Amino acid sequence: MLHFECDYTGGALPEVLEALTATNGEQTPGYGADIHTGRAKELIRSLCGAPDAEVYLAVGGTQANAMVLDALLGPSEGVVAAETAHIGVHEAGAIEASGHKVLTLGQHDGKIAAADLADYLRAFYADDTWPHMVIPGAVYISFPTELGTLYTRDELRELAAVCRRYELPLYVDGARLGYGLAAASCDVTLADLAAEADVFYLGGTKQGLLMGEAVVARKGLLRNFFTVMKRHGGVLAKGRLLGVQFCALLSDDLYLRSSRWAVELAMRLREGFAARGYAPLVDSPTNQQFFRLPNALIDRLSERASFGYWGPRGAEASAVRFVTSWATTREEVDGLVALLDEA
Amino acid sequence: MLHFECDYTGGALPEVLEALTATNGEQTPGYGADIHTGRAKELIRSLCGAPDAEVYLAVGGTQANAMVLDALLGPSEGVVAAETAHIGVHEAGAIEASGHKVLTLGQHDGKIAAADLADYLRAFYADDTWPHMVIPGAVYISFPTELGTLYTRDELRELAAVCRRYELPLYVDGARLGYGLAAASCDVTLADLAAEADVFYLGGTKQGLLMGEAVVARKGLLRNFFTVMKRHGGVLAKGRLLGVQFCALLSDDLYLRSSRWAVELAMRLREGFAARGYAPLVDSPTNQQFFRLPNALIDRLSERASFGYWGPRGAEASAVRFVTSWATTREEVDGLVALLDEA
Amino acid sequence: MLHFECDYTGGALPEVLEALTATNGEQTPGYGADIHTGRAKELIRSLCGAPDAEVYLAVGGTQANAMVLDALLGPSEGVVAAETAHIGVHEAGAIEASGHKVLTLGQHDGKIAAADLADYLRAFYADDTWPHMVIPGAVYISFPTELGTLYTRDELRELAAVCRRYELPLYVDGARLGYGLAAASCDVTLADLAAEADVFYLGGTKQGLLMGEAVVARKGLLRNFFTVMKRHGGVLAKGRLLGVQFCALLSDDLYLRSSRWAVELAMRLREGFAARGYAPLVDSPTNQQFFRLPNALIDRLSERASFGYWGPRGAEASAVRFVTSWATTREEVDGLVALLDEA
Amino acid sequence: MLHFECDYTGGALPEVLEALTATNGEQTPGYGADIHTGRAKELIRSLCGAPDAEVYLAVGGTQANAMVLDALLGPSEGVVAAETAHIGVHEAGAIEASGHKVLTLGQHDGKIAAADLADYLRAFYADDTWPHMVIPGAVYISFPTELGTLYTRDELRELAAVCRRYELPLYVDGARLGYGLAAASCDVTLADLAAEADVFYLGGTKQGLLMGEAVVARKGLLRNFFTVMKRHGGVLAKGRLLGVQFCALLSDDLYLRSSRWAVELAMRLREGFAARGYAPLVDSPTNQQFFRLPNALIDRLSERASFGYWGPRGAEASAVRFVTSWATTREEVDGLVALLDEA
Repeated sequence: MLHFECDYTGGALPEVLEALTATNGEQTPGYGADIHTGRAKELIRSLCGAPDAEVYLAVGGTQANAMVLDALLGPSEGVVAAETAHIGVHEAGAIEASGHKVLTLGQHDGKIAAADLADYLRAFYADDTWPHMVIPGAVYISFPTELGTLYTRDELRELAAVCRRYELPLYVDGARLGYGLAAASCDVTLADLAAEADVFYLGGTKQGLLMGEAVVARKGLLRNFFTVMKRHGGVLAKGRLLGVQFCALLSDDLYLRSSRWAVELAMRLREGFAARGYAPLVDSPTNQQFFRLPNALIDRLSERASFGYWGPRGAEASAVRFVTSWATTREEVDGLVALLDEA
Repeated sequence: MLHFECDYTGGALPEVLEALTATNGEQTPGYGADIHTGRAKELIRSLCGAPDAEVYLAVGGTQANAMVLDALLGPSEGVVAAETAHIGVHEAGAIEASGHKVLTLGQHDGKIAAADLADYLRAFYADDTWPHMVIPGAVYISFPTELGTLYTRDELRELAAVCRRYELPLYVDGARLGYGLAAASCDVTLADLAAEADVFYLGGTKQGLLMGEAVVARKGLLRNFFTVMKRHGGVLAKGRLLGVQFCALLSDDLYLRSSRWAVELAMRLREGFAARGYAPLVDSPTNQQFFRLPNALIDRLSERASFGYWGPRGAEASAVRFVTSWATTREEVDGLVALLDEA
Repeated sequence: MLHFECDYTGGALPEVLEALTATNGEQTPGYGADIHTGRAKELIRSLCGAPDAEVYLAVGGTQANAMVLDALLGPSEGVVAAETAHIGVHEAGAIEASGHKVLTLGQHDGKIAAADLADYLRAFYADDTWPHMVIPGAVYISFPTELGTLYTRDELRELAAVCRRYELPLYVDGARLGYGLAAASCDVTLADLAAEADVFYLGGTKQGLLMGEAVVARKGLLRNFFTVMKRHGGVLAKGRLLGVQFCALLSDDLYLRSSRWAVELAMRLREGFAARGYAPLVDSPTNQQFFRLPNALIDRLSERASFGYWGPRGAEASAVRFVTSWATTREEVDGLVALLDEA
Repeated sequence: MLHFECDYTGGALPEVLEALTATNGEQTPGYGADIHTGRAKELIRSLCGAPDAEVYLAVGGTQANAMVLDALLGPSEGVVAAETAHIGVHEAGAIEASGHKVLTLGQHDGKIAAADLADYLRAFYADDTWPHMVIPGAVYISFPTELGTLYTRDELRELAAVCRRYELPLYVDGARLGYGLAAASCDVTLADLAAEADVFYLGGTKQGLLMGEAVVARKGLLRNFFTVMKRHGGVLAKGRLLGVQFCALLSDDLYLRSSRWAVELAMRLREGFAARGYAPLVDSPTNQQFFRLPNALIDRLSERASFGYWGPRGAEASAVRFVTSWATTREEVDGLVALLDEA
């Protein structure tokens, strides 16, 4: 079976597993007070050019989102997000579980436009019944988005400017951040992100760790965040597992190297499909590629490859998603494309 | 000033205040254990033809909604509602405050269609990622809706049938229930409501009480509901206030008489507007009437009458809402209509 | 039946009901934007000598507590309170419903000692596992306490000083505040309370209103509090009901006059019991009086008077509570005491 | 440094890490739908003699507790637990975060007595104000307890019988379950636990996994539990990590072998201390040992060994805890004991 259903079907990058093995015999203090975690945080601050940033290592993305937004939002506040945002759709109400509403905006290929955000905020406060409504308390975007697209640096800055005008923290979900930074068209750097976002997380699970996400926050913003994490069940007893893995991922350019690999294969896949008449549904420069394919083709491909529907199955044709990762091989991509020619 | 901004600008129906005065000297046990509350519950059961129904008297509508849905929904569940539903828009996240998402469906003049609900539920369970999403755990409708419209008995039955097929309790927000029952075109009775809905509330605040809503539930459905109410701060120490008021409202046909009055005036208002070329935006047979008026007219009317925008102010014209109530007088309606002729 | 089970068995003070009747015909804006509510807030600020204080009118005490603490506490924080505190025992988990733990301290006749609070806080931060524990985020006391006792001004100041040292807001539950201020031994004034507490509420329900509590907060402390109230279902549509009632209660010294009356009768009751050999269990100078009585006597009294157990019924004797209010008559107290002499 | 501060300072059992390495190259479906997770669940059902049990693999203990209790408790309910229970002390309010109160009972060496539980429940429902209080909705015990002690089979059965009488699910926190089962005096088996408890978890993190806990529940009890887990951020994308690890731990008797090793060393440590005049504070037959030691000795030991205070440091002497694990060596224990002889 050729695996394209997501970027977490594999285990870990070999370097990551080796680092875990190499450090397995060590005895370290729990809950992230170990030296590996300390070093990982330093590495991240350094890569972000943000020496004052606070870094927290979390286990998973849904949890990171829930913990950060729990810390950012007051009791009367919700988070503004695209209607396609992962937090509003596929996280089982984890934001609502802390009492907060997800306030949705229309999206453009998975992105929210600064102008739309500004319009929404202006209209919100222009409506004199606003105190009866959930107050926007933070803005969530994903980078790359759920549709694989990227904000340009200008778009990011414009969004951040609107956020600052309304004193709303901007939070960026970077579950697939590496695949975004590695995209040919990406003009955003980690330092840009650290400068424009108030909080973001640099995803590890989808980038070759067993699990782990690194939350990076403006100093002082996330009050008592260790305790917030603990109350969410989000503090790992053997915290060093996260530290050791991030140290390995962020050394020797492994993070970007492995991301670039996945993105190159995604482009190869996309070109293979396009050359056979299947234009992508979304112009995604990252590791997720979307196509509308005839159901008959989908059924045939499914016998040899795994991938997912994107939305409900249509009458004749359906939208599907193919995802590459650090673990994808060229042979897999070529094998998938070759399947298009069969029949 | 002519008051049409809502149906809670007045105090209470005289009979209601008289009943409070007449019973003021009594000493009664607290928290609804008094005889007036007992009698009110009996009256409601009797009017609903539902001798086994459980009745709970609550202070306000937002609270009633939050308490009922807290009791109905499991921790992974949300409530399905129209995108215009009061619980999703103007209740400040009270549903989310208990950890539950409002799952919105498209609406037709404020109503959700049984077919749309069935489609949504079918598609939800057809998507094999559904366990990652908030599970529909109850359905909320309002009767009359936020747009003043009514479900026909057939529409109500069809919705209830879909709900039963998926074992979803159907909850009806009856903040303005009397104004619905009093509408000329209404073919739904209290008994129909009690038969088709699993829970509904019969609103008092907008129907001439100082405050108070009566929650009517299928026997055994709302487990430990007194305690749920208490934890929401929704149990009144002097519970008899609610009992006394509902007894007065539900005696001598006062509830329907006063509702009919308000609806007749709403029809008079509507006809007055229509006769002057302002057709209603929505075909509402109840006490809320919506029009799109030129901004200049709105500004002029606003000097002498109070009413609200319905949505943002437009460039040239805007949607506005006029509401009548038991307290509205014919002179007020005629005065408002006369204002249209000025200028 | 002689009523001593609580201070909310009666209706409202006649002046209060008259004010409601007198204003019933008025049309006013909803949700507390009316002039009566505005006037009530001014009266309260003035009585408290706190011209900058923010005042919010709430329906009930459990709700006021839940709303205030929801606004005061961060997501990792709990509220410190005496183990006898109403919020920890008889409010059905309303504080936990917003995600916050009640952190209990030992009590002395219902009060917490400043020294105990200081010890607790010192020990908390001395324990290096504290980030794994719920962080104290506010301090709750009741005045009078659940046992009818009062903090002296010095005790209040000492507590407030400890709170300030740890930057913890001090919140005072004043459900029976008038009965405290009216006590002969009370050396605390409303102005003291407004100066030392960060938030407190001046109770109305137990002091002769139909319902209503006035939350008084240091300016700027309770962010977006209207919306917090709304999300708790704690905003009354006909907000003027609270305003009108508080205006009546706080005019012509009615609040203190009626409180003094209740306290005098409580002292009369207490002396009556003491003279017959039943010393009070707690030295309460307010309207709640506690005694340990033989079960046989309790059973006999219960035939003619209503009052409550305070804790479980013992084998031979049990603790019971008698409560007077603005509505209690001298005849009722004398009648109760006379019952002691029978048999 | 000799490590005795907890049982999670080490990495993983070598067999566990080897299993992760051996399976690293596999591509598997996410979120626990892989074959390793399936096999782990089967192994657990088999070891428990509970073929119908539902098994869920979770990341950590605080999270497992929060998720299980969120699923078990209704909105008006709390969980009964010993005052020393981990959920009430060191989990940062994770239970309250879902809106539920921890209702504490007195403890006997960390255990709650069936008689105390029965007394509490009888008294609760005998108090006619109970509907104003948080309703007991489940019972939590830990096995071993936070003090290293064990319930006997009879004690467990008695507790379970009280729970059944009140229809309260019994939930057992087995973070250190293996160290309990391995104790010489333990007469409880996994099958007993599965028979008496309604839900329990078999801890992995403290038993030699990188992380992971296996929740075992009576069939049908935890409704929609996958979604509940997801909303708590408790579903691992690469779910197989948990499956692979549990398969390794539960094969070849590794779980009990490694547990027995830790317990033998704990007994050796205990005897070493006792032989030098330091009797244990608690009669713990498991891997946690508690002593009251002179502060001077504590300070001296701390230079060479890590261990924790158990409560605040006393004036002259203090309670401390030493914990062994699968990773502890005989040399470490002997080295620690030898330190007692120095000076």
